[in-house]
Amino acid sequence: MAHQLDKSVPIPLYYQLKELILNDIKDGTLQVGDAIPVEKELSAIYGISRTTVRQAVAELVQEGWLYRVKSKGTFVKAPKIEQSFIQALGSFNDQIRDLGMTPRTEVLELEVIDVPGFVSDKLNIPLGSKVIYLHRRRFADNEPIVMVKTYLPYNKCKFVIERDFVKESLYPVLGESLETQIRKIRRYIEAVESEKYDFDYLNMEKGKAVQRFISIGFNYRDEPIEYSIARYRGDKNSFEIIITAT
Amino acid sequence: MAHQLDKSVPIPLYYQLKELILNDIKDGTLQVGDAIPVEKELSAIYGISRTTVRQAVAELVQEGWLYRVKSKGTFVKAPKIEQSFIQALGSFNDQIRDLGMTPRTEVLELEVIDVPGFVSDKLNIPLGSKVIYLHRRRFADNEPIVMVKTYLPYNKCKFVIERDFVKESLYPVLGESLETQIRKIRRYIEAVESEKYDFDYLNMEKGKAVQRFISIGFNYRDEPIEYSIARYRGDKNSFEIIITAT
Repeated sequence: MAHQLDKSVPIPLYYQLKELILNDIKDGTLQVGDAIPVEKELSAIYGISRTTVRQAVAELVQEGWLYRVKSKGTFVKAPKIEQSFIQALGSFNDQIRDLGMTPRTEVLELEVIDVPGFVSDKLNIPLGSKVIYLHRRRFADNEPIVMVKTYLPYNKCKFVIERDFVKESLYPVLGESLETQIRKIRRYIEAVESEKYDFDYLNMEKGKAVQRFISIGFNYRDEPIEYSIARYRGDKNSFEIIITAT
Repeated sequence: MAHQLDKSVPIPLYYQLKELILNDIKDGTLQVGDAIPVEKELSAIYGISRTTVRQAVAELVQEGWLYRVKSKGTFVKAPKIEQSFIQALGSFNDQIRDLGMTPRTEVLELEVIDVPGFVSDKLNIPLGSKVIYLHRRRFADNEPIVMVKTYLPYNKCKFVIERDFVKESLYPVLGESLETQIRKIRRYIEAVESEKYDFDYLNMEKGKAVQRFISIGFNYRDEPIEYSIARYRGDKNSFEIIITAT
């Protein structure tokens, strides 16, 4: 941060400082995890009040560029992954690639099980039926960002059990048959607290926020084909939707 | 819970127990905040194993009907407020009423201020311009469920400053003029951790999850008219969206 603030222009000093820090983040002078100078130093370097420094830093924290660690300092944050719901019927791999990152999927489980009670309702199949249970961990640039548990009615989706979901995405595979192609998703969005499962699989700490999506996918006849529970690291993901008046 | 399990039918016992508890919640026999009997008691009452009881209770916890308090017990949870994104351009008051609850809004601030740096970008207006700042707390049945900070460009929205947002909703008011009517919303969805602001206004505790929506509302000419930050209590709200293939 070798730049100067310009007191002769009508741009507030806090905003100028903010832009300087932001430029350093954007051009890589400041890297993810780097500490920024403390309030006192910034105030001395630029000859501005600590209140002004505080406002600049507070806005950068609020906007997600920096984060504070108590009695340690203020650091540059990893940017969130922005995903568009417009592409929600597209594949995870394509979305991550579109963001310039490398997707990777780990398949933890892929097996035929008795339908759990909470799934039988949602898939509209009786207790005692079989479902395919697919449990995946998905990464962007080798960081785990989401855990997904998927349940598919076995009688309709038998062919799925032989596929390799390290290499393939679920929706394109389901799309190979008209009967199982997903044409509509009903999705429930909730913010929940991290729990042991997230500590173990997503490297999260206690007291952090998880973005949970519960999705039911339907085929062209409006029959439920997929029930999924996805848990995204809150600090790594942001989702965009566009709503238009009808 | 005076009912019996039926060991002669091919319905798993854990599922039968789950349905019994659920019925008691749905018909009001068990009220929000009521404790359910401990594992040992349920096991004795119904003559089933503790593993079976555990599975029933675990699923009810996972589905959001019950919650556990360490070394206190398991209690009936207040249901989440389900809001549909389909109605996202409708008013908060209508949505809460549709759910059979009573909406209420508190206006904490309604004033003309200099546009904050992080808003000027989003509303596409220069630093130094004025915005209307509206800060609201919104309740359902007297429980605070969301805090909303809204910024509107003053030059386009002057008339808004004289309105009473205890009685009126923002979108119908903006809809009175073609210039300010919201036709499209670009919304960013994130799960974040509760902070002091949420402790103070939403009666939240540390370590809880907040559903944050950052929204930019556009008029028919695609000009940004509204920038809002909404923080919903994660434990009180669930949002539904429907995504269809094109």
